[in-house]
Amino acid sequence: MFIPIILGTAREGRQSEKAAQFVLEEVLKYGLESEILDVRDFRLPATDASKQSDVAKKLAEKITRADGLIVVSPEYNHGYPGELKMMLDMLYTEYAHKPLGICGVSMGGLGGVRMVEQLRQVATELHMVNIREAIYFSGIQNLFENGKIKDESFGGRVKTMLDELVWYANTLKQGIK
Amino acid sequence: MFIPIILGTAREGRQSEKAAQFVLEEVLKYGLESEILDVRDFRLPATDASKQSDVAKKLAEKITRADGLIVVSPEYNHGYPGELKMMLDMLYTEYAHKPLGICGVSMGGLGGVRMVEQLRQVATELHMVNIREAIYFSGIQNLFENGKIKDESFGGRVKTMLDELVWYANTLKQGIK
Amino acid sequence: MFIPIILGTAREGRQSEKAAQFVLEEVLKYGLESEILDVRDFRLPATDASKQSDVAKKLAEKITRADGLIVVSPEYNHGYPGELKMMLDMLYTEYAHKPLGICGVSMGGLGGVRMVEQLRQVATELHMVNIREAIYFSGIQNLFENGKIKDESFGGRVKTMLDELVWYANTLKQGIK
Amino acid sequence: MFIPIILGTAREGRQSEKAAQFVLEEVLKYGLESEILDVRDFRLPATDASKQSDVAKKLAEKITRADGLIVVSPEYNHGYPGELKMMLDMLYTEYAHKPLGICGVSMGGLGGVRMVEQLRQVATELHMVNIREAIYFSGIQNLFENGKIKDESFGGRVKTMLDELVWYANTLKQGIK
Repeated sequence: MFIPIILGTAREGRQSEKAAQFVLEEVLKYGLESEILDVRDFRLPATDASKQSDVAKKLAEKITRADGLIVVSPEYNHGYPGELKMMLDMLYTEYAHKPLGICGVSMGGLGGVRMVEQLRQVATELHMVNIREAIYFSGIQNLFENGKIKDESFGGRVKTMLDELVWYANTLKQGIK
Repeated sequence: MFIPIILGTAREGRQSEKAAQFVLEEVLKYGLESEILDVRDFRLPATDASKQSDVAKKLAEKITRADGLIVVSPEYNHGYPGELKMMLDMLYTEYAHKPLGICGVSMGGLGGVRMVEQLRQVATELHMVNIREAIYFSGIQNLFENGKIKDESFGGRVKTMLDELVWYANTLKQGIK
Repeated sequence: MFIPIILGTAREGRQSEKAAQFVLEEVLKYGLESEILDVRDFRLPATDASKQSDVAKKLAEKITRADGLIVVSPEYNHGYPGELKMMLDMLYTEYAHKPLGICGVSMGGLGGVRMVEQLRQVATELHMVNIREAIYFSGIQNLFENGKIKDESFGGRVKTMLDELVWYANTLKQGIK
Repeated sequence: MFIPIILGTAREGRQSEKAAQFVLEEVLKYGLESEILDVRDFRLPATDASKQSDVAKKLAEKITRADGLIVVSPEYNHGYPGELKMMLDMLYTEYAHKPLGICGVSMGGLGGVRMVEQLRQVATELHMVNIREAIYFSGIQNLFENGKIKDESFGGRVKTMLDELVWYANTLKQGIK
C-alpha cells in the first residue's frame, strides 16, 4: 500500500520538514510504502489545472498510484500555504475516492487546526475522503531534539491515523473495481 | 438500503419541508427505503449527548439501521439551525462510516451553501463520509407550485447524489463486516 | 460601557459556566459593566426570528444596550451548541456594528477553536465585527480549583481581548452617531 | 480615500480579470482612488513573510497607504488560489484595522462563496474587518459582452459594498489617530 506524504510548505527555514520526516518514518515502520512529495519539487508560478506541465505529470503519476494521502503542512494566517494549494490544484480526478489524513504544524498551541479545517473543505471537492483523525504538531520549534521527537505520544497518534487511513484505503478500493 | 432524510428546521412556516418531501419522493423512486426524520420529533431543551432521552433512543434506532443519511436544511445566518445541531449531537458512534448527502435550502441565490460547509465539518467529527455532491435549493419560496417542483433539473441532481451516496454506502459496508 | 457575556450551553453539568464566571469577574475588574446572558434563560423550541417571543424581547433589550459582546461556549462535535445558535438567530439588526470576542471551551487540547471559527462566520452575517483575539479554555475540566483558575495567564489573555474589544466598541460608535 | 483591488489569480486565461476591471470602474465612478494590484506582479516561489523581498516592499507601500481593500478572486476547488494566499502572507501588521470587501468569481452558480468564507477567516487573523456585503460573480464566462457586464444589477451591488466599506474605513480611522 502506497501512502505518500505531501510536505506543504516551501518556506525558507520551514519547521514542518521535521514533522514530515517523523511521519514518514512512522509510516514506513507501520509497513507501508511511502515517500515525501516536497512542494518545492511541484511548483508553478500560477494556478494551472491543465495537467500539461511537467510537475503536474510527475504529481499525477504519484497520486494515481497512491492508495491514500497524508499532508503535513503549517498553518499560515489561519489558512493553508499558497504553494500547497497550487500543488493540489494541478490535478482533479486523480484524487477521487482516496482517504486523506492531515497533520497540522504550528509554533503556537493550536497545531494548525484551522489549516486542517480549510484543507478538508478542499479535499471534499476533490472527492477525497476526510478521515476523522488528524495530528496537531503544536510548538513545533521545541518539539524535536537531535532529529528525535521529544513527545513520544506522537508515535501512537500516527498509528491511530494510519489504522483509519488504511481501513478506508482498503475499503474504498473494493468499490472501485 | 435505508437512507432516511433529516428535515433540519422546526421553524414555523418552514419552506424546507417542501424540499424534503421532494427529495423523499425521489429517493423512493430510486428504489431505496426512506422516511423523513423531522427535527420537530427529536427535540430537547438543551444539548444532551447522554443518549438516555426517549428521543435519543428513537433517533439511535433509526441511525443505527441507516446505510447513509441525507440532511435537508435551511441556512440561518450562514450556519445550521440550532435545533438540527442539538438533534445531531444526541448521538455519536451511531453515525460512523456512513455517507452523508446534504441539501441546502435558501430564499436567496446561494442555496444554503455555507450551512452545507459548516455541517460537513461537523460530519467529519462524527466519522461520517461527506460525499462531494450537494444540492442547493435556491429561491425556495418560488420553486414549488401545487406541491410540484418547477425546475425539473432537480430530479437529475438528486439522482447524481444518490448514485454517489449508494456507492459509498455499499462500499463502506464491506469494510465494517 | 456594557459588554454582556453570552453563556452558550444549557447542557446539564456544563463546564463552560466556570469559564464564563471567570470572564465576568475579569470584565468587571477591567471597569466595564457586564452580566451573563445564560442561554438557559433564552430558549425556544424552534428557530424563530420573528422577535415576537418574550425571550427575544428580553434579548433585544440587552443587545441593543450592549456596546460589544462576548460569547463563552463549548465546542460540540466541531460546531457551536444548538441552543446558542437558536438564541443568536432570535435577532438580527440589533447586533450590527458591535464587536464580538469569543471564548472557546473544550475538554481536549484545542480550546474549542473550530467552534470559534464557525461562530465568526455567523457573526459576519450579523454585521458584527470579529476581533482577532480569542481565548481558548482547553482542558476545562482541570482548569479550575475551588472556583479559581489555576493558570494565571488567562487574566492577561482576557485583558488583551478587552483592550481590542473596547477599542472597537469606542471606535465603531463614532461612525454610528 | 484609496481602496486598491487585489486580482487574486495569475492563471492563464483567467476570467476574474473582467470582474476586477468592472469593479475598478465602479470604484472610480464612486469617487474613490483605486488601482488593480495584480497577483502576477506580486509573486514569490515560496511563502515568505520576511517582508524583505522587492515585491513585499512594493505591496507594503500599497497596503500601508490603503484605507480599505477589495479582493476579486475565483474559487478553485472550494478554496482561494495559492498565488493569492502567498501574496497576502507577505505582510501582516500592514493590514490591521482596514475593512475588506471580497468579490467571488465562478463558472458555476455559487459565485465563489466558499472562497469568500475561507478568505474571511484569513482576514480576521490579519486584523482586518470583514464587511458583511460580498459580491458573487456567478457564471463569469457568460457575464460580459464586449467588455460590458450584461447584468446591470451588479452596479448597485458594488455601490452597496462600497457604502459599507467606506463607512468602516472612515470610522476605523478615527480610532487609530
